[in-house]
Amino acid sequence: MDYKSLRNEFNTPFYIYDFDEIKKNFLELKEAFKARKSQIFYALKANSNLSLLQMLVKLDSGFDCVSIGEVKRALRAGAKPYKIIFSGVAKTEEELKEALGYDILYINLESESELLLLENVAKKLNVKARISIRVNPDVDAKTHPYISTGLNENKFGVEIEQAKKMYLYAKKSSYLEPIGIHFHIGSQLLDLSPVYEAAEIVAKLVRELKALKIDIKFFDIGGGLGVAYEKDDLRPDLYLYAQGILSKLGGLDVTIGMEPGRFLVAKSGKFVCSVLYEKHNKTKRFVIVDGAMNDLIRPSLYEAYHEIIMPYNEGEKSLCDIVGGICESGDFFAKDRLLEQTQSGDILVINDAGAYGFSMSSNYNTRNRVCELALEDGKIRMIRQRESFEDQIILEEKFLKD
Amino acid sequence: MDYKSLRNEFNTPFYIYDFDEIKKNFLELKEAFKARKSQIFYALKANSNLSLLQMLVKLDSGFDCVSIGEVKRALRAGAKPYKIIFSGVAKTEEELKEALGYDILYINLESESELLLLENVAKKLNVKARISIRVNPDVDAKTHPYISTGLNENKFGVEIEQAKKMYLYAKKSSYLEPIGIHFHIGSQLLDLSPVYEAAEIVAKLVRELKALKIDIKFFDIGGGLGVAYEKDDLRPDLYLYAQGILSKLGGLDVTIGMEPGRFLVAKSGKFVCSVLYEKHNKTKRFVIVDGAMNDLIRPSLYEAYHEIIMPYNEGEKSLCDIVGGICESGDFFAKDRLLEQTQSGDILVINDAGAYGFSMSSNYNTRNRVCELALEDGKIRMIRQRESFEDQIILEEKFLKD
Repeated sequence: MDYKSLRNEFNTPFYIYDFDEIKKNFLELKEAFKARKSQIFYALKANSNLSLLQMLVKLDSGFDCVSIGEVKRALRAGAKPYKIIFSGVAKTEEELKEALGYDILYINLESESELLLLENVAKKLNVKARISIRVNPDVDAKTHPYISTGLNENKFGVEIEQAKKMYLYAKKSSYLEPIGIHFHIGSQLLDLSPVYEAAEIVAKLVRELKALKIDIKFFDIGGGLGVAYEKDDLRPDLYLYAQGILSKLGGLDVTIGMEPGRFLVAKSGKFVCSVLYEKHNKTKRFVIVDGAMNDLIRPSLYEAYHEIIMPYNEGEKSLCDIVGGICESGDFFAKDRLLEQTQSGDILVINDAGAYGFSMSSNYNTRNRVCELALEDGKIRMIRQRESFEDQIILEEKFLKD
Repeated sequence: MDYKSLRNEFNTPFYIYDFDEIKKNFLELKEAFKARKSQIFYALKANSNLSLLQMLVKLDSGFDCVSIGEVKRALRAGAKPYKIIFSGVAKTEEELKEALGYDILYINLESESELLLLENVAKKLNVKARISIRVNPDVDAKTHPYISTGLNENKFGVEIEQAKKMYLYAKKSSYLEPIGIHFHIGSQLLDLSPVYEAAEIVAKLVRELKALKIDIKFFDIGGGLGVAYEKDDLRPDLYLYAQGILSKLGGLDVTIGMEPGRFLVAKSGKFVCSVLYEKHNKTKRFVIVDGAMNDLIRPSLYEAYHEIIMPYNEGEKSLCDIVGGICESGDFFAKDRLLEQTQSGDILVINDAGAYGFSMSSNYNTRNRVCELALEDGKIRMIRQRESFEDQIILEEKFLKD
C-alpha cells in the first residue's frame, strides 16, 4: 500500500479497511456452513461504518445490533428489516417500541423482566413480537475476563432452566412468538471447544422445546471466532468449526445464525500514524506518534497486542514504547517493542485494527476523531470524514452565555 | 436535588455539575497560595465543557491545554491568550504554529526534538516563542501506573540535566524565550510528599538557571491533587500543600503555576442513570442501568471506585454488580457493591463523576453521548445537548453509494 500518497491526500492518522478481504472472510465463513441453512448476522459493534455495512448488505449479510442506533445504522445502509436482529442486556422501552415498529426479524431477550416489558410493549402496539432468548450455558470460554460472557457470573443471557420457563410463557402469550435461540460465550476465542460444548447444551434445550411444540427456527451460535493478533495465535479452522457445531445439532431442522464481528473485520483494518518525535532518557526509548488511545483504546483497556510495522524503515531494531500524545501514561500502543530507528514524519502502521478501533474512539483531550478509508476493487475512497474542532463543539457552543 | 423532575425535563442518563462548588474549590486553592504570586491553570482534559470554562474565565482562571483543540476551547470560552499554556508530548508542527499565532502565555516543551521544532516554526513566523520545559524529577508518585508520570520510565518531560542544556540552548536562540519551568508527577495524589520532593529538586534547578541569567518567572507545580473517591481517602489539606511547596522555594521570585483538573471538578459532578432491569441468576445479582462504559469508562479502564447511591430507595441492601448495556463484561460501574433493591425506572446516581467522565466518553455500540447540565446560583441549565443518531452519522452518511 502506498501510505505516503495516502498521507498526502488524507493526512494521518487514519483507519483503512480492505473491503475485498472482508468480503473474502464473509464468503469463506458462509461456505463452511453450506451443508445447512445458515445466516450471517454481522455484529456491528466491531465496526459500524455505514459504507462497510452497505458492502455487507450486497453480500446478503444480516446484522446483529445491540442498540437502536445500530439497528438504524443497518437500515440506513440498506439492510432489509428481516435481516436484522436486536440483542443487548439493556434495551429500553423506547428502543423495543422502535424495533417492533421496524418489524425486524427478532428481538433477542436477555432477562425475564425484558420478556415482560416486550410483551407489554407489543400489546400496546397490538403486534406479535418475534423473539429469541439468549441462554447462558455456563461454559468457560477461557478468554480475557472483559470479553468472556458465558459464565453465570456474567450479566448476559439467562440460565437454561429459566429460559425454558420463558419460552413456555412466550408460547402462551398472544403478543410473543418464540422463533430463535441464542448463545454467545465470549470474544476472541482461539480454542473453539467451549463453543461446541455450549452448542450441545443448547441443542438439547431446543429438542426439549420442539417436543413442547415451540418451534425454534433460528439456532444462533453467536460470534467469538478469534483472530491471530500475535504470531503464535492460530486462526480457527472454519471447516472444523462448522463440523464441530453441526455434529452437535444432529437432525435438528434449524437455520444456523452466526454473529461474527471481529472475525470479519479485525485483520482487514490498519491504523496509520506518523511519528512525531523520538525521545530517549536514561532508561527508555519512546516513539511518539500522532495517533493516541482516544483513537485505538484496545492496548490500554485490554492490554491487547497489535503488530506494529514501519513500512519504509530499515536497519537494526531496538526496544521502545510506542505512545500517543494523550496526557496519561496509559496512552500507549505497545510497550518494550522492537522497532527500527525512526525520524519525525516516518509512517507507522498498527495492524489488525479493523475491529473495536474506530468504534470505541473518543474525543479525549479534545482530539478530533480520525477519518476512515476503504480499499475496494483496487481503489481507495473515504468512508468517514475527519472530525473538526467545530464538529466537536456544535452541541455545546450554543449554551455559552453572551 | 430533584432528580425526578430533572429526568422529566432532560431524560437520563445525564451529567450534572455543581458550578458553585467548583467556584468554591477554585477560590479555596487560590486562597491557600495567597502569600505568593500564583496563577491557576485549569487542566481542561478533566472536563472541557465550554460553559464550565466560561465560568472559570470569570474567576480569572488560566488554562492548561494539551492539544490545539483544548487551546481553541479556552479561547472560545473567552480566555485571554496570556492565560493559556500548551503542554503535551505530541504537539505537531501545525499545532505549534497555530499556538504561536494565538500568542498564548507559553508552550510547555516535553523533549529536545520539540524544542528544535518549535525554534524552527518560530523562526519561520519570525516570532520569539515563550517556553517552559517540563522536567521529570524521577520521583515516584505511588499512584495508579496509568496516571503516574514522574518517573524516568514515563514518556513525560525531560531529565534535569537535559533540561538544563535545553534552557541554555533556548537562551542563546533568537526565537526562544525561556520563562517557565514545569513538573507534574502524577494524578490523584492523596499523599503529597512526593510533590514537595519534586518541588525541591526543581527549585534547585531554577536557582542554577537564575545564576546563569535564565529568568524563570513561572514555577508550575502541575496538578495531581487527589480527591476522596473512597470513604477512607482524605482530601489533601490545601494549607499544608501550599506550605509544603513554599518551604521548598525559599526566596525564589516566581509566580507559582498550578494545574488542577480533577481537584476542581471531580467531586462536583454526578452521572445520573435510570435502572432498566434487575436480573438474578444462581450466583449473582445485576442492576442494569441506561448509562454504560461509553459514558463513564473510569471503572473499566482504571478499576476506579465511584460511590453509587439510590436517592429514592430505602430498605435492606444486598451485593450486586451495577452494569451498563454494552455488550462486554468490562462494562460495569461497580462490582459486588451493596445496593438497595431496585425497580425499573428507579434513579441511580454515580457520584464524583465530574472529572474524566464526559471528556472520555465515546459512541461505542452506536450510543448517543449524553447531555450535560449545570447547577449555578440555584438554577439548572443545559450546557451540552444530548447527541442524536443523525449527529453520529453526519460525517459518514454522505459517503454511501446510491
